Amino acid sequence: MKVKVSRKAHFNAAHRLYRKDWDDAKNNLVFGKCNNPNYHGHNYELVVSVTGEIDPETGFVIDMKILKDLIKSEIEDALDHKNLNVEVPEFKTLNPTAENIVIVIYNKLLPHIDSNKELEVVLYETPRNFVTYNG
Amino acid sequence: MKVKVSRKAHFNAAHRLYRKDWDDAKNNLVFGKCNNPNYHGHNYELVVSVTGEIDPETGFVIDMKILKDLIKSEIEDALDHKNLNVEVPEFKTLNPTAENIVIVIYNKLLPHIDSNKELEVVLYETPRNFVTYNG
Amino acid sequence: MKVKVSRKAHFNAAHRLYRKDWDDAKNNLVFGKCNNPNYHGHNYELVVSVTGEIDPETGFVIDMKILKDLIKSEIEDALDHKNLNVEVPEFKTLNPTAENIVIVIYNKLLPHIDSNKELEVVLYETPRNFVTYNG
Amino acid sequence: MKVKVSRKAHFNAAHRLYRKDWDDAKNNLVFGKCNNPNYHGHNYELVVSVTGEIDPETGFVIDMKILKDLIKSEIEDALDHKNLNVEVPEFKTLNPTAENIVIVIYNKLLPHIDSNKELEVVLYETPRNFVTYNG
Amino acid sequence: MKVKVSRKAHFNAAHRLYRKDWDDAKNNLVFGKCNNPNYHGHNYELVVSVTGEIDPETGFVIDMKILKDLIKSEIEDALDHKNLNVEVPEFKTLNPTAENIVIVIYNKLLPHIDSNKELEVVLYETPRNFVTYNG
Amino acid sequence: MKVKVSRKAHFNAAHRLYRKDWDDAKNNLVFGKCNNPNYHGHNYELVVSVTGEIDPETGFVIDMKILKDLIKSEIEDALDHKNLNVEVPEFKTLNPTAENIVIVIYNKLLPHIDSNKELEVVLYETPRNFVTYNG
Repeated sequence: MKVKVSRKAHFNAAHRLYRKDWDDAKNNLVFGKCNNPNYHGHNYELVVSVTGEIDPETGFVIDMKILKDLIKSEIEDALDHKNLNVEVPEFKTLNPTAENIVIVIYNKLLPHIDSNKELEVVLYETPRNFVTYNG
Repeated sequence: MKVKVSRKAHFNAAHRLYRKDWDDAKNNLVFGKCNNPNYHGHNYELVVSVTGEIDPETGFVIDMKILKDLIKSEIEDALDHKNLNVEVPEFKTLNPTAENIVIVIYNKLLPHIDSNKELEVVLYETPRNFVTYNG
Repeated sequence: MKVKVSRKAHFNAAHRLYRKDWDDAKNNLVFGKCNNPNYHGHNYELVVSVTGEIDPETGFVIDMKILKDLIKSEIEDALDHKNLNVEVPEFKTLNPTAENIVIVIYNKLLPHIDSNKELEVVLYETPRNFVTYNG
Repeated sequence: MKVKVSRKAHFNAAHRLYRKDWDDAKNNLVFGKCNNPNYHGHNYELVVSVTGEIDPETGFVIDMKILKDLIKSEIEDALDHKNLNVEVPEFKTLNPTAENIVIVIYNKLLPHIDSNKELEVVLYETPRNFVTYNG
Repeated sequence: MKVKVSRKAHFNAAHRLYRKDWDDAKNNLVFGKCNNPNYHGHNYELVVSVTGEIDPETGFVIDMKILKDLIKSEIEDALDHKNLNVEVPEFKTLNPTAENIVIVIYNKLLPHIDSNKELEVVLYETPRNFVTYNG
Repeated sequence: MKVKVSRKAHFNAAHRLYRKDWDDAKNNLVFGKCNNPNYHGHNYELVVSVTGEIDPETGFVIDMKILKDLIKSEIEDALDHKNLNVEVPEFKTLNPTAENIVIVIYNKLLPHIDSNKELEVVLYETPRNFVTYNG
C-alpha cells in the first residue's frame, strides 16, 4: 500500500542561459532572449513527492511538516532570491535550464529521504513550462 | 490504446489527527496543531482517474457523467460536510491522515470500476499538500 | 497616486452554522448540512488589501513583509487549525458565516493599518464561494 | 538521467458527440446534452510532455521554444476556433470525445518527436474533466 | 456594514461573432477567426456577486445555496451546452460578444435580486479574457 | 451600460530593490533579501482592464485582439526577459517595487486608450503578492 505524498513550495530567482565556451552569436541562436547578460527571472514553483509505505502507527508516509521544513532548509534557503548563475555553486559550470535545476534540486533532497522511499521533483519555470525528474 | 480519464470533485470536512492509545504529550509531539481536540477542517479536492481501452462504439473509456455520479454517491454523500472522526465509520479506528483518507476513497470506488480498468485517486488536503494512491 | 497592495494568506478551520435560540428543525431548514453538530471545515483563503499613497522614499504603500507578518500574528495565529465556534471568542455569540468571519477579520486588522489608508478583505470559504468587505 | 519536459497550450473549439448510425433516441441516451445538433464548445487546455535524456551541451531535453512552435503549427492551427465535427478531417468519421481528441493530438505530434523520446498528452475538456494518453 | 457575496459557476457553449448585415469581408476583418460560420466554443466561467447588508438573524447577505440555485435555473439551464446564436433568444439579433453576454446574464438575474442589493457579474470567456458588468 | 474588459498577460524579469543614496545597512534593513546585488526575478502576471460603453455596431468595448497586441508592443516587448534596473529606462532612478512598476505600466498604456474609457492595471509579482492602479 504505497502512497505518494506531495508538497508544493516556491522560490524566486534570476538566471541566464548561456555557455561561456560559445560566442555571443551561438548563445543567442540557441538560447534567444534567455541569454540576456543582465539576467531575467522567474517565480519557480516546486512539487516534491515522496512515495512509500504508510507508517501504520502515525498514518503518515512522511510527515508533511518534516517535508516542508526539508524543502525550506535544502532548497528555498539555497535558491530563493538568488542569482542562480552567480550565487549557487552547482551552476558555476552548469547551465541553469529547468532540466538542470530540477536535477540539482533532486540531488540536494535525495540524501535526506529514506532509501526505501522514492523521490520525484516537478519544477515549474512558468505556469506553462515545467519539468519532472525522478532519478 | 489505453487512455486515462480524470474527473475532479470536492468535499468539505472536519477532522483531528490523534491516536486514542497515546497520551496528549505524544499526540501533540507527532500531530501538532492537527491534534486540536475541537477539530479543524479542509476543502478536500479529489481527482479520480480511470484508465482503460476506449469503447470503439461510444469513444468513451468511461462516461464522465457516470464517473461524476459515482463520486457523488460513494464519496461526496459519505464525506461532505462531515466530521471524519465522529461520523465516518472507516475512521472510527483509523487516523484520518490524507494518506489514510485516499486509501479509504480508493477502496470505496474500486468495486464500482470494471476489473479490466485501473483506478487512481489524488486527494488535495490543501492546495499545497496532496497524496496519490493507485492500489 | 494611490495604489492597492494585496497579499494572499490562508488558514484551515472547523465551523458549524446555527443559532442556539432556534430549534433543530429551523436550524436545518436555514443552514442545511452546514448545521452538522459535529462540525465540518474549510481551507479559507484570504486576500488582504491596503490602499494608499506610495512612500516616495521606499516605493512601498506598505511593506509586503510587514503585511504578511500582520496577517500571521492577527489572523492566522487566531484562526488556523481552530474550531471557530468553540475556540474563537468573536464567534461565541456570532454565527460564523463567511460574511461574519470577513468582518471579524477586517476589525482585527484595522487598528494596525494607518488611518490614511483603506483596508479591504476578501475571504474564500471554498474556491466557488467568497465574500468581500471594506468597512 | 531522463527528464520530462512539459508545455501548456490551449485552443477553443465547438463539437457535438453523436453517431450518424444511431437514431436520436440512442444518441440522446448515451451522449445527453453533448448531442446538441447545434454544437456546444470548450476552452481545451493541453499539456504536451516529452521525456528523454538531457543534451549535455544545451541542458535541454527539447527546446521549449521548439515544442511551443510545434504545438502551434500542428495542433492550434488545426483545431483552434474550429468546429471539430465539420472542419477537422480526423473527426469526419470519429466521435470527438476527449478520449478520441487526445489520441488524434498525440498522433499528429508523434512524427515530430525524436524516436528515442517519449510523448504524453493531457487534454482538459473543462477544468474538471481531463484525459491522458501516452501511446 | 455591506458585504459582497460571490459565487462561481460555469457553462459551455458554442458561438460565432458576426453581423448579418455585413458582408464576409467586413465580418472577417472585424471578428477574425471568431467569425467561423461553423462556430467555435468556450468554457465560460461566471462570478455572480450580490452586495448588501447582512441579515442579523442568519448572518447571510444572501444564502449561497439560493444564489447557486438561481444561477442554475436562470443562467446554466438557459446557456449550458447551447449554441448561443441559434438557440438563445437574446442573441437572435445581438452579437454574442463577451460584453453582450455579460449584460444578458445580468438582466436575467436582476429581477430575482432584492432591490436594496447590488448585482455584479464577471464573465470569463477564456482564462485570459473576461468582462465585468454591474448595471 | 459601461462594461469592464480585462485581458491577462505576463512577462519574466529580474530586479533588485535598493536606493543608491542609502548604504548597504539601510538597504538591507528596508529591502531585505530583495536587495540582493546580483538580482532575483519573477514571473509577473498582468491584468489590464478597459472600461467604457459598448460599441453598438461590434458589441465590443475594445477588441480583445487590439488590447492583446497593445500589451505585447508596449509592455511585453519593453519588460519581458529584461533586467528592470539595468535595461528599462523608467527604473534608472526609480526603485522597481511592484507599486512603481504598476504605475509605469499604466502610464505606458494610457496614451493608447480612448480618453472616454478608464484604464486599470493589476500586477502580480508572485501568486500571493499583487498591486492595483487605476490612475
